[in-house]
Amino acid sequence: MITTDILIIGAGPTGLFTVFEAGLLKLRCHLIDALPQPGGQCSEIYPKKPIYDIPAYPEILAGDLTGKLMEQIKQFEPGFTLGERAETIEKQEDETFIVTTNKGTKHQAKVVAIAGGLGSFEPRKPPIPNIVNFEDKGVEYMIREPEMYRNKKVVISGGGDSALDWSIFLTDIAAEVTLIHRRNEFRGALDSVEKVQELKDAGKIKMITPAEVKGIIGKDKVEGVSVVQNGGEEFTIETDHFIPLFGLSPKLGPIANWGLEIEKNAIKVDNALDYQTNIPGIYAIGDVNTYPGKLKLILCGFHEATLMCQSAFQRIFPDKKYVMKYTTVGGVDGFDGTRKEAPKAVVKKID
Amino acid sequence: MITTDILIIGAGPTGLFTVFEAGLLKLRCHLIDALPQPGGQCSEIYPKKPIYDIPAYPEILAGDLTGKLMEQIKQFEPGFTLGERAETIEKQEDETFIVTTNKGTKHQAKVVAIAGGLGSFEPRKPPIPNIVNFEDKGVEYMIREPEMYRNKKVVISGGGDSALDWSIFLTDIAAEVTLIHRRNEFRGALDSVEKVQELKDAGKIKMITPAEVKGIIGKDKVEGVSVVQNGGEEFTIETDHFIPLFGLSPKLGPIANWGLEIEKNAIKVDNALDYQTNIPGIYAIGDVNTYPGKLKLILCGFHEATLMCQSAFQRIFPDKKYVMKYTTVGGVDGFDGTRKEAPKAVVKKID
Ligand SMILES: Cc1cc2nc3c(=O)[nH]c(=O)nc-3n(C[C@H](O)[C@H](O)[C@H](O)COP(=O)(O)OP(=O)(O)OC[C@H]3O[C@@H](n4cnc5c(N)ncnc54)[C@H](O)[C@@H]3O)c2cc1C
Ligand SMILES: Cc1cc2nc3c(=O)[nH]c(=O)nc-3n(C[C@H](O)[C@H](O)[C@H](O)COP(=O)(O)OP(=O)(O)OC[C@H]3O[C@@H](n4cnc5c(N)ncnc54)[C@H](O)[C@@H]3O)c2cc1C
Repeated sequence: MITTDILIIGAGPTGLFTVFEAGLLKLRCHLIDALPQPGGQCSEIYPKKPIYDIPAYPEILAGDLTGKLMEQIKQFEPGFTLGERAETIEKQEDETFIVTTNKGTKHQAKVVAIAGGLGSFEPRKPPIPNIVNFEDKGVEYMIREPEMYRNKKVVISGGGDSALDWSIFLTDIAAEVTLIHRRNEFRGALDSVEKVQELKDAGKIKMITPAEVKGIIGKDKVEGVSVVQNGGEEFTIETDHFIPLFGLSPKLGPIANWGLEIEKNAIKVDNALDYQTNIPGIYAIGDVNTYPGKLKLILCGFHEATLMCQSAFQRIFPDKKYVMKYTTVGGVDGFDGTRKEAPKAVVKKID
Repeated sequence: MITTDILIIGAGPTGLFTVFEAGLLKLRCHLIDALPQPGGQCSEIYPKKPIYDIPAYPEILAGDLTGKLMEQIKQFEPGFTLGERAETIEKQEDETFIVTTNKGTKHQAKVVAIAGGLGSFEPRKPPIPNIVNFEDKGVEYMIREPEMYRNKKVVISGGGDSALDWSIFLTDIAAEVTLIHRRNEFRGALDSVEKVQELKDAGKIKMITPAEVKGIIGKDKVEGVSVVQNGGEEFTIETDHFIPLFGLSPKLGPIANWGLEIEKNAIKVDNALDYQTNIPGIYAIGDVNTYPGKLKLILCGFHEATLMCQSAFQRIFPDKKYVMKYTTVGGVDGFDGTRKEAPKAVVKKID
């Protein structure tokens, strides 16, 4: 059982910044995310694209935003359960909640902050009849741990940024990389497309287009895929892994059944006070919540997270009174023993 | 008469970011501030100190935050009335407001956003009986335009950062810089204190300590000040300017008499919707407002400004429907003709 003060569901920008605001209040956080990496939409959908409306950043790449937030929260040592979906929640007699993931990992906390964005990112699966039998037996819809492909044969399928970028990345690790796409044209950042062309010309990526994977071959695990190219005869490629990268799309999913008030596919909260839901102790912040005038913007999630943490503090320590100190004045004390503080003014004689 | 869409009172971080969010909605802004420079508390009180809780900035100096915000809003060409205090407001028959400053400058807009922080920054004046007679005739409590001191004799009084830093700065401009302080010890950033010591040793700053200015001498304008050093005899120093830098302190001031609901020295707003005050068309955002759970933090002002602009848009264009577009997707079109946009994905054949 993982225990913490605030259990955060969703490691997008809102969930990440929550760790910082909680840390200032000396509250510890643990995050659950269905994705293998933090950053939510910013890292899954548009990591290389610029955002222009983050306050005081005239321009920042979405991936860099995630990086900056990770750096900012580091000293508060957040825990992560990545690549797992929060599935069920149960309120205990002692008023704590237990949240269990689809892989059975259990987490316990007095406060749950749902920062689930548009929902848990779930892969779009290709229409291959027997594919479910091979999931986690050679079929992966997202790449969690690139090292597991070392010296293996890999077939990637897809025509967008993920398929391009992972094909490039895995040429250095895998024994063989084959990229299959149903068109000859790829859609992605110019430099990615050009790099794949280069690696293909150098014989480091095998390319089969226009083509589709029709079936998976293997006994207990993937041994090969059967492919049809350009309407021709079906043929087999030997491989250890088949990685269809057709994008991930967010689904509110199990959270919709937690007894929370839902409106427009989002969770209703009390925006006049603390972004709490209809279940005391469960808050909803960022894209996942709704209230009159709600804007699904990153900067709004930051504010919501900050106010929510104050309320969570009261819930966790009903008898303590918190007196806010500016970070500039009070400094920042990390759980890792580090301290950040403004250089003190000196009082010094001039003579 | 200066006319604009949103008239912003206060050019602190909240007021500045409002220009950006308004600009995305194609609304123009003009800002009034009592200070000679934008940045509010960040530039007046702690420009060289780090802030740790600006989202995605593990650390940023308050002065740099102001700089980044100014850069971010540049393309929306905000107007500024600086060094003037907004004094009165009148609602016109056509539902617009006219705001007049203490210097008589008039501004007209359909929407007024009060982003006045803790209030208008007003100088702490030294207890010199006839000082008011010389205001703007050689006595200045803040430095608006350093060039006006070129080749002039200047007496600065004070013992903190402002007195130190302006003494240093003016040695390159003024004919003579004298620094008077009632103690021998100065309080400020170490490098400032050391720099002043250095300039004193080099004969570029004349220093009189422990000493106080007791009177001002002159007919129509400042010609000299009379000084007592170490309890001794009063003596006269010839000077063209006397600049007492004893700090500025914020006072809610005239805004308190505008008919707005005030609570705890701040303006009550509808935080459940759009941060509007009890007077339709007047909003209050940032440190100047209050509501249940309010935190006087910069990041909260950013959120409040953003929601407020949506409501202002409805007020200014009751018949237009605004469809929000992410900056990443829609880009940012400046009023100066510039356009920022994310690089487009390419669709390209690999063969
Ligand atoms: C192309 C594009 C451009 C954009 N441009 C901008 C812009 O310019 N400015 C701006 O402010 N915003 C922009 N946005 C929106 C911005 O990305 C979102 O507002 C932001 O990501 C919301 O952050 P969040 O942390 O609330 O949620 P998300 O980023 O959506 O993160 C939520 C996370 O929760 C996880 N999750 C959900 N449910 C579960 C569960 N049951 N178990 C485990 N994990 C779960 C998801 O997997 C996800 O990783 C853009 C979005 C897109 C798609
Ligand atoms: C030492 C110190 C450290 C701080 N550290 C932090 C920190 O770490 N993190 C954080 O989030 N916040 C911090 N703060 C608070 C932060 O600076 C404020 O929250 C922020 O400046 C508020 O921004 P604002 O734009 O709402 O108001 P302000 O910055 O106060 O700006 C308001 C402006 O309005 C002007 N004004 C008011 N009335 C009038 C009028 N009638 N006419 C003309 N002009 C007028 C004032 O002159 C002023 O320039 C700190 C503050 C101080 C003093």
